[in-house]
Amino acid sequence: MREFILYSRKGQTNAGFSSLHDAGRLDVVHECIVASLFLSHGLRRNVVFDVILNGPPTPPVHLRLDGQTLYDVRTDAGTWDGILRKVLSSKVHSGISLQKTSFEAVLKERSKDHSVYVLEEGGKNIEDFDLEASPVFVLGDHIGLPKTVESFALRYGEKISLGKQAYLAASCLTILNFVMDRRNLP
Amino acid sequence: MREFILYSRKGQTNAGFSSLHDAGRLDVVHECIVASLFLSHGLRRNVVFDVILNGPPTPPVHLRLDGQTLYDVRTDAGTWDGILRKVLSSKVHSGISLQKTSFEAVLKERSKDHSVYVLEEGGKNIEDFDLEASPVFVLGDHIGLPKTVESFALRYGEKISLGKQAYLAASCLTILNFVMDRRNLP
Repeated sequence: MREFILYSRKGQTNAGFSSLHDAGRLDVVHECIVASLFLSHGLRRNVVFDVILNGPPTPPVHLRLDGQTLYDVRTDAGTWDGILRKVLSSKVHSGISLQKTSFEAVLKERSKDHSVYVLEEGGKNIEDFDLEASPVFVLGDHIGLPKTVESFALRYGEKISLGKQAYLAASCLTILNFVMDRRNLP
Repeated sequence: MREFILYSRKGQTNAGFSSLHDAGRLDVVHECIVASLFLSHGLRRNVVFDVILNGPPTPPVHLRLDGQTLYDVRTDAGTWDGILRKVLSSKVHSGISLQKTSFEAVLKERSKDHSVYVLEEGGKNIEDFDLEASPVFVLGDHIGLPKTVESFALRYGEKISLGKQAYLAASCLTILNFVMDRRNLP
């Protein structure tokens, strides 16, 4: 299993938005969902994607998307505009849960039985070591992790990087999946 | 330099569309543009991205986006909805050219002084060989390359794959950039 935790600084926490972009960049969250969970012909059933939305009006909101039970989804923005509105209005969609849990609480709980890796420029290059089984990766959205959140995350995890380039958040997720695919990691 | 050529089967060839998605999946073209040309803090000035749109009403249209001269761009869909409408209405945007050239003509011309690699499941794994300098990569959109187009492309290039998984078109571009970054290829 692979798990990704995205910290969204400004992602809106209710459904009253005009567009994903204007909802604190929920469009970036959409791109990250696609990069984490989708292959060309289907879903990665072995991936869990978490996002903690910290935008107005009622942060935090923790959405958990489980590839194993996620259904009725496509890759396009229109589909996810609809799904995010639905779950942020407390309606149900198969494979997605909503909790009022903070990033810190989610991470602390996961770290109990998973190795945590925090994506940061200047971290240890992922090419230079073996990943533990069932890894959990933490990353920020287009603005990056706030300093206090990063410090907290590093109490539970190790800082890693994808090399010299600073990639977009969704690109990081695509690359992490690729690196694990290449190593035949589940 | 790195060049990517995307064959879009149905991408609309004028600006009369209601949304990128409904314009023969120009939303996929947008995702591929972002994956090819954008890093977290700026553009890849060493990348050229070509797309040949083969949708109605007046195919083919060849758009060429040159990272070296591209300006006034962001990653979000709204930005590219505007830019694609603009260039498909024959207006000018820095770094983007529009020609009525077919995929076949573009590829034939590029193959004169570049090595061409055609992305296909079942191709030689990219991890198993060195890429030539200034490579050109050919790929299809979400529907894939039509058989006749693929046969044509393989007269000029070699079939390669990114491993066992079939990735989304935009993911393929992210991974190709990552593989070249990791090898310190320009």
